[in-house]
Amino acid sequence: MTLSRRELLRTVPAAALAAGLPRFASAAGGAGGDGMIVRMQEPRNLETPLADLGGVTPTEKFFVRSHFAVPTVEAKGFTLAVEGHVEKKLELALDDLKKMATVTREVTLECAGNGRVFLVPQGRGLQWGNGGVGNAKWTGVPLGAVLERAGVKAGAVDVVLVGADKGAITSDPPSPGPIHFDRGIPLAKAKADETLLAWEMNGEPLTTAHGAPLRAVVGGWYGMAAVKWLTRVVVTDRPHAGFWQTMDYSVWDRSGASPQVVPITAIQPKAVITSPELNTVVAAGKKLTVAGVAWAGEQAVKSVELSADGGAMWAAATVEASKPLTWAKWTAEVTPAKGPLRLVARCTDAKGNAQPEKRDPDRRTYMINHLVPVDVTAK
Amino acid sequence: MTLSRRELLRTVPAAALAAGLPRFASAAGGAGGDGMIVRMQEPRNLETPLADLGGVTPTEKFFVRSHFAVPTVEAKGFTLAVEGHVEKKLELALDDLKKMATVTREVTLECAGNGRVFLVPQGRGLQWGNGGVGNAKWTGVPLGAVLERAGVKAGAVDVVLVGADKGAITSDPPSPGPIHFDRGIPLAKAKADETLLAWEMNGEPLTTAHGAPLRAVVGGWYGMAAVKWLTRVVVTDRPHAGFWQTMDYSVWDRSGASPQVVPITAIQPKAVITSPELNTVVAAGKKLTVAGVAWAGEQAVKSVELSADGGAMWAAATVEASKPLTWAKWTAEVTPAKGPLRLVARCTDAKGNAQPEKRDPDRRTYMINHLVPVDVTAK
Repeated sequence: MTLSRRELLRTVPAAALAAGLPRFASAAGGAGGDGMIVRMQEPRNLETPLADLGGVTPTEKFFVRSHFAVPTVEAKGFTLAVEGHVEKKLELALDDLKKMATVTREVTLECAGNGRVFLVPQGRGLQWGNGGVGNAKWTGVPLGAVLERAGVKAGAVDVVLVGADKGAITSDPPSPGPIHFDRGIPLAKAKADETLLAWEMNGEPLTTAHGAPLRAVVGGWYGMAAVKWLTRVVVTDRPHAGFWQTMDYSVWDRSGASPQVVPITAIQPKAVITSPELNTVVAAGKKLTVAGVAWAGEQAVKSVELSADGGAMWAAATVEASKPLTWAKWTAEVTPAKGPLRLVARCTDAKGNAQPEKRDPDRRTYMINHLVPVDVTAK
Repeated sequence: MTLSRRELLRTVPAAALAAGLPRFASAAGGAGGDGMIVRMQEPRNLETPLADLGGVTPTEKFFVRSHFAVPTVEAKGFTLAVEGHVEKKLELALDDLKKMATVTREVTLECAGNGRVFLVPQGRGLQWGNGGVGNAKWTGVPLGAVLERAGVKAGAVDVVLVGADKGAITSDPPSPGPIHFDRGIPLAKAKADETLLAWEMNGEPLTTAHGAPLRAVVGGWYGMAAVKWLTRVVVTDRPHAGFWQTMDYSVWDRSGASPQVVPITAIQPKAVITSPELNTVVAAGKKLTVAGVAWAGEQAVKSVELSADGGAMWAAATVEASKPLTWAKWTAEVTPAKGPLRLVARCTDAKGNAQPEKRDPDRRTYMINHLVPVDVTAK
C-alpha cells in the first residue's frame, strides 16, 4: 500500500499519539491538530487544510495562532480586570460575565499574514498558505456592555486587550524581559456589536488553544485583535502604541501628512479557491466545478468572479447568501481544454472594493489579498 | 617626527584637500570636517572632538547627523509649505519668514544616540562617542508665530516637520521607495518659545550640512526633531506615526496600560568629562583639574558631581551659571595617587533628576546618559 504525502502527514500525529507522547500533545494547548498543517511547532501554529474552509469550522479544524507558549489560565478563580480611563474599575469572574446578556455571533477570523507563503519576495513571519482563516460561532458578551458597566470616561480613545500569554521580543527593538501580548482597538470598534468577549466557540467552552477561558473576538478585523487568554481590558485616553500595533501588525500608510506606520484593522476582501487545489490534474473537456470561499471583513461579499485564463476574462461565480463578518461559499463552472489552466478568483465587497491585482508593498507582510492564481493541468 | 594617532587623523583631511578632491569634499554638504571624527562616510556623519565641547560650538566643529544623501535646496525660490489642519495654507519664501520678528537662541542639540559606543552589548546605529552634541546660536522665527499666521484649527495634535532629504528604509519594515525624513512634535512643543525655524547658525546663514536654507530647532529635545532642509510643516489632528518616531527614535515605555513604543522627546541630564581624556596619563600627587560640560535639555543644570573612585564617593564640581536649553562648563579638582584613576561625572537637573547609574535597556540604543567612567592612569 502506498500512502500519498497527505495521508502520510495525517498518519503521523495519530502514530505519535499511539506511541504515547502526552507531553508533546499538551504543548499544543489542546489544539488537536489531526490533519492540520503545522506552520510552527512551538508555540504551535496550525493551518486549516483548504478542504475544510467554508461553513462553520469545527473547533479542532480551526487555525491556531499563538505568539508565545500557551498559558494555562484556570477558569476557576479567573477574573477579568477592566480598568484605566473608567469610572469604576471592575474585577469580573466568568460567572459575572455569564450573568450578562449573552450573544452568539458567527464571525470569520483571518490571520493578518494569511497567504504569506505566496509573497514574492518571501516575507518574514509564519508561512501560511490560504488556511490561516476560520469561521466559528462565538458566544459571550459584547465588550460594549462590559465597558458600559465600568463607565467609560470622557476622552477615552482606545481599549487595550491584554492576554495572559507573554514572552520576550527578540527582533529589533528587543523587549528587555517578557511582555504580554496585547492590542488596542479604538473605542468605537470596542463598542460595536461585533466585538465580543467570548467563552464559547461552536457551542462548547473555549479550548486552551483558542484562548480559554476568555478571548476577544473583534468581528471584521484581522485576528491579531482577537486577543486570547484575555485577563485585562484597559481603557486609555490616548492611542495605544503597543508592540503589536507599531512594530508588528502595522503597515505603511501614505494618506496623511507624511508616510506613517499604522496598525492593521479590517479584513480585506478575498476569494480563495478550495477546489481544485494547486498543481493538481483535472479532466479536460468535462465540466469542472471550481469551488471556494470568500469574505470581506466588516462588509458582505457582493460578488465573486472567476477567471480560467490567469485574469484576462472573468465570469461571475454563484455566491451563497453573504452577510458581513462571515465568509460565504461560491462555485463556478468551467470546461477546460487540454493543457495548463490558470484559475484566479476575485472578490468584491458590498462597498465595491475588489481584490487588487498586484501586491501593495506598503502592506509589508500583512493584509495579503492580491490575486494569486491556482495553476492546474487539464488532461 | 612621530605623529600621535590623533595628529595622524587630523592630518589626513588636510592632505586629502591638498591633493585636490573637491568631489569628496562636496559630498559632506560643506560639513568641513577638519579635525572631526568621521562616524559614517556617506552620508557624512561627523562627531565633535571632546576638546571642542563647551561654549558656542563653531559651525565647522558642530556634529553632523544626516540620514540620507544631503539634498541641495536652493534658497532662491525656496518655499516652506504650512498646511494640514490649519485655517489657511501658507507658502512662505525665506524673505517672508525674515520679515517676521526674528529671535536668536542659544540651544544645545544632542543626537539621541550620543554615547552609543559605550553601550554593552553594542547597539545598532552610529557609534558616537560623547561628541554627538553641539551648542549654537540659532536665528529664525518661532514656529509658533508661523502656526499663528496659518491659524491652527481646533483639534490639532501634532506638527509634522518634513525635510527635503529622502531615501529608502532598508531595515524592517522596509519602505517601498524613498520617503522623506520627518518628525511630528506635539502642538504644545511646536508653540513653545524654544522651537524655531532657523536660517542662521552662529550669525551666518546655515550651511548645507546643517540644513540650509531652513531647519527646525526644537530646544531641549534630542536632535531627531530638529529637522534639516525643512520644506513642509503639516498640522495633524491625530498623533503622527512616522517611521522616525515609531520604528526609529522610539523607546519602550511601561507607564501605561501595557508596554508601548513611544517617540523620544526631551534630552536627559548628562555630564561629560572633556579633560582628561580616556586612557591618558596624568601626574600623580599633583592637583588635576577635571573639566567638562553638562546639559539637561529643557532644564537648567542644578549640580555636577565628580567621583575619582568609580562612583563610591562624590564631590561637588563648580558649574558655570546654567540655564535651560544650553550646556554649562564645569570643573573639579582632584589630587590622584599613583595608579589607576576612575573618574565619573554626574549631572542633576533643576528638577532633581540625576543621571542613572545603570543603563535602562528599555531605552533601546537611545537616550544614553547612564554613568560611564573615564579611566586614566596617574604616574
